[in-house]
Amino acid sequence: MLMKTGSQSLTEQLSARFAERIRSRLLAPGARLPSVRQCAQQQGVSVSTVVAAYDQLLAQGLVVAHKNRGFFVRDASFNAASAPAPQAPAAIKGVADSANPDAPSAWSTATWMAARQAPVDATALIRGMFHKVSNKPQPGMGVFPPEWLDTSFMPAAVRKVTSGSALRDFSLSYGEPMGDSGLRRALSQKLSVLNVHAGPEQIITSVGATHALDIVSRTLLRAGDCVMVEEPGWAVEFARLDALGMRILPVPRRADGPDLEVMARYCEAHAPKLFVSVSVFHNPTGYCLSPGSAHRVLQLANQHNFHIVEDDTYSHLAPDHATRLSALDGLQRTIYVSGFAKILAPGWRVGFMAAPPDLVQRLLDTKLLGTLTTPALLEKALAWCIDQGQLRRHAERIRTRLDAARARSVKLALAHGCSFAAEPAGLFGWVDTGVDTDALAQRMLDEGYLIAPGALFHAVRTPTTLMRINFATTQEAAFWKVFARLRDAML
Amino acid sequence: MLMKTGSQSLTEQLSARFAERIRSRLLAPGARLPSVRQCAQQQGVSVSTVVAAYDQLLAQGLVVAHKNRGFFVRDASFNAASAPAPQAPAAIKGVADSANPDAPSAWSTATWMAARQAPVDATALIRGMFHKVSNKPQPGMGVFPPEWLDTSFMPAAVRKVTSGSALRDFSLSYGEPMGDSGLRRALSQKLSVLNVHAGPEQIITSVGATHALDIVSRTLLRAGDCVMVEEPGWAVEFARLDALGMRILPVPRRADGPDLEVMARYCEAHAPKLFVSVSVFHNPTGYCLSPGSAHRVLQLANQHNFHIVEDDTYSHLAPDHATRLSALDGLQRTIYVSGFAKILAPGWRVGFMAAPPDLVQRLLDTKLLGTLTTPALLEKALAWCIDQGQLRRHAERIRTRLDAARARSVKLALAHGCSFAAEPAGLFGWVDTGVDTDALAQRMLDEGYLIAPGALFHAVRTPTTLMRINFATTQEAAFWKVFARLRDAML
Repeated sequence: MLMKTGSQSLTEQLSARFAERIRSRLLAPGARLPSVRQCAQQQGVSVSTVVAAYDQLLAQGLVVAHKNRGFFVRDASFNAASAPAPQAPAAIKGVADSANPDAPSAWSTATWMAARQAPVDATALIRGMFHKVSNKPQPGMGVFPPEWLDTSFMPAAVRKVTSGSALRDFSLSYGEPMGDSGLRRALSQKLSVLNVHAGPEQIITSVGATHALDIVSRTLLRAGDCVMVEEPGWAVEFARLDALGMRILPVPRRADGPDLEVMARYCEAHAPKLFVSVSVFHNPTGYCLSPGSAHRVLQLANQHNFHIVEDDTYSHLAPDHATRLSALDGLQRTIYVSGFAKILAPGWRVGFMAAPPDLVQRLLDTKLLGTLTTPALLEKALAWCIDQGQLRRHAERIRTRLDAARARSVKLALAHGCSFAAEPAGLFGWVDTGVDTDALAQRMLDEGYLIAPGALFHAVRTPTTLMRINFATTQEAAFWKVFARLRDAML
Repeated sequence: MLMKTGSQSLTEQLSARFAERIRSRLLAPGARLPSVRQCAQQQGVSVSTVVAAYDQLLAQGLVVAHKNRGFFVRDASFNAASAPAPQAPAAIKGVADSANPDAPSAWSTATWMAARQAPVDATALIRGMFHKVSNKPQPGMGVFPPEWLDTSFMPAAVRKVTSGSALRDFSLSYGEPMGDSGLRRALSQKLSVLNVHAGPEQIITSVGATHALDIVSRTLLRAGDCVMVEEPGWAVEFARLDALGMRILPVPRRADGPDLEVMARYCEAHAPKLFVSVSVFHNPTGYCLSPGSAHRVLQLANQHNFHIVEDDTYSHLAPDHATRLSALDGLQRTIYVSGFAKILAPGWRVGFMAAPPDLVQRLLDTKLLGTLTTPALLEKALAWCIDQGQLRRHAERIRTRLDAARARSVKLALAHGCSFAAEPAGLFGWVDTGVDTDALAQRMLDEGYLIAPGALFHAVRTPTTLMRINFATTQEAAFWKVFARLRDAML
């Protein structure tokens, strides 16, 4: 709610609010602003205040006006003269086509160009990850709130590895190319419990799991190659592949795994080089891969000669016996990727990949060419946390706490008229709200809540009534009350 | 010198030595092994011992035999069935053509394919950076020996930023997308002393300068784009651009700057998008850009609309008033990149870029998509070192020590029959040995010395008599004696 203050008029406050959201990409380039009348009603201000605020945004070059169609966020980043910008397609189509490999001819340039629109939007999600919109618990967050991760063993680990002359030893030279050998030994042990058998010489550390995924795609793919991804899925992954010039083939994700018929048809038509998959507690649905589905995915990979990168980011929240492609495959054509942002310290940026022996040297080259080594300090501290058993015990506590939070969140969501598009499990809920969540997201922002609208989890942004919630941050009634009020106003 | 031991025969020792070098890429894929007779002579063993050792390497699949031509290191990494491997060109040409834009028709596919050979070789250098061949001072090293960098303020900085609740605050969330704001303020101040004016909001941190260069090229270029690089130059940069699918245009680097005529002709013929330049203490020559040359490079950039990324890695070793393109240009089309591996702590991997305001958001997107944030702990510790003035005083001490080391090294090099291809300055000397340094490098390895042969600094590997030396590690007579003995044996 905007309030008159001495220093800033309502117009200034309103235009500043939109300007901030546009700059932080919470309002994506190309997005339509509410109509003047709608905005006046939503904000409880006069029509003339909104007109003046929109005029200021126009003058600042942040929005453009289309006659009779309203105001749209300007796509400023692609106006630079020398930018290697994708051209906007004449007609944006793609989602229907891309999910329909029955029509391979539909994979025209126009379709690829349409898919190229995605990253502009996906940056909204990634910016949201870092954007503090208020002090309230944020339902759109991708990680646990800091207080969940607070432990006494983490600072102890840092003290341990920086005391005495140890810090000098690993600071004053580049360190081990593959990553700290102590950490790689600890990870090898840890993986064997998941039935993923990888020696320390098959493990390469990275700047978080994201960086590991980046290294894998840069190693296995060249611009123009086709990559299969799960849809819905992690939009940052789509955006990164797109920025690398890859062609994205979205495979519908079902409860037990990817849609195998769609995959098979993609393989026939496009010879994809890679499949990117979250087997366990898939983001955003929470689905886990079934053993039968895993077996068939691997059969397909062998038959059509593609690699698989298995993103096991939510590994610590899942039971050891959950089905992983890397376990079935024995790391033959699967690369296993994980990290510690979801369980210990997002700010440490430690991740890793475990790879087939014949890929290790090529993956290492890509790592070294892109960043040289990774910082040993945090890798050594993490190794200590694993070796002492602290991380395992902490993960058990987190799982218990998350189970309770999930139960509360689910109850509240159902009580407030939502349904679940997928059986609740893991960190995220995939919730049907009944209204367009892109529009809802803007209204929720006015109330200090950042939500993750379903459109962000698709390769091409289209309106949807789904949203992803974080069970750790949606277990209080306060959020659901605000949600229900704004949702009801949209019905 | 090989010696008989109880546990290992001479054959086993010899084949193990070659196997280790091949695996660590100190012998590059495609490189020719010494002839059986040469090898026997060099190693002081019988011809039959060498034959048996080479047979073992053949059996292990590490080398291939070409009838009447000898033994060659097998290019194993590109034999994987699914590797997106460049095909070997029918005829390897390229250096002459690539330096000769008079003949734009020569920029055929064959030439590009020839240039694509480079990364296979360049990995040798990068592996060498991390490979401890002996406890001797290593003339091929790219950084100072650890004892030069040892300070008491570095551990103090880490203690300072990890004490109390500070560690928790920045570990348990992703941190600031652009990088620690304290560090960005400190860097902004530091840059202003170099006449490079960039607010903290124009600075983005990275995992070392290498990562910053990677972010810049991924943001400004698409696969197939043309990039101008300086030749000789930093081979890891060539290899990275090549791995990204870029077309590399090598510009001869002269004492006062890049060859402007060659650049102008490249601009006419190929419309390059980017120029990668080390203005100050250029690697490997030690050259510094003159103000006149800087002005003309910027004129060319404006005329032909390309960006420049200025790699100021050796910044701390140079006077503040050294000419930097970013200072003249006012960060309009120049992106400034630097790091701290050459002055404080290679193992911390902290680097940064300072960019034109209109590029900041796009560069940030590339950073976030590739690694999300960077670790705040080391960024905060570095900020403390800068703010306290410790880094500046340390850099002054290092410069004084380097001046003395350089004077001793130059004297020894001249006394041992070398000449300098460039006036000695900065960290590196560009030395003419009079013999093929690729062959010399293999012999020096037998004596426990890793040297950096000149061929590694070219876009396409060709034999040269030049080598790069690190003045900090070549100031003792012991190295030069071994060098002169092996060199003389080759004359």
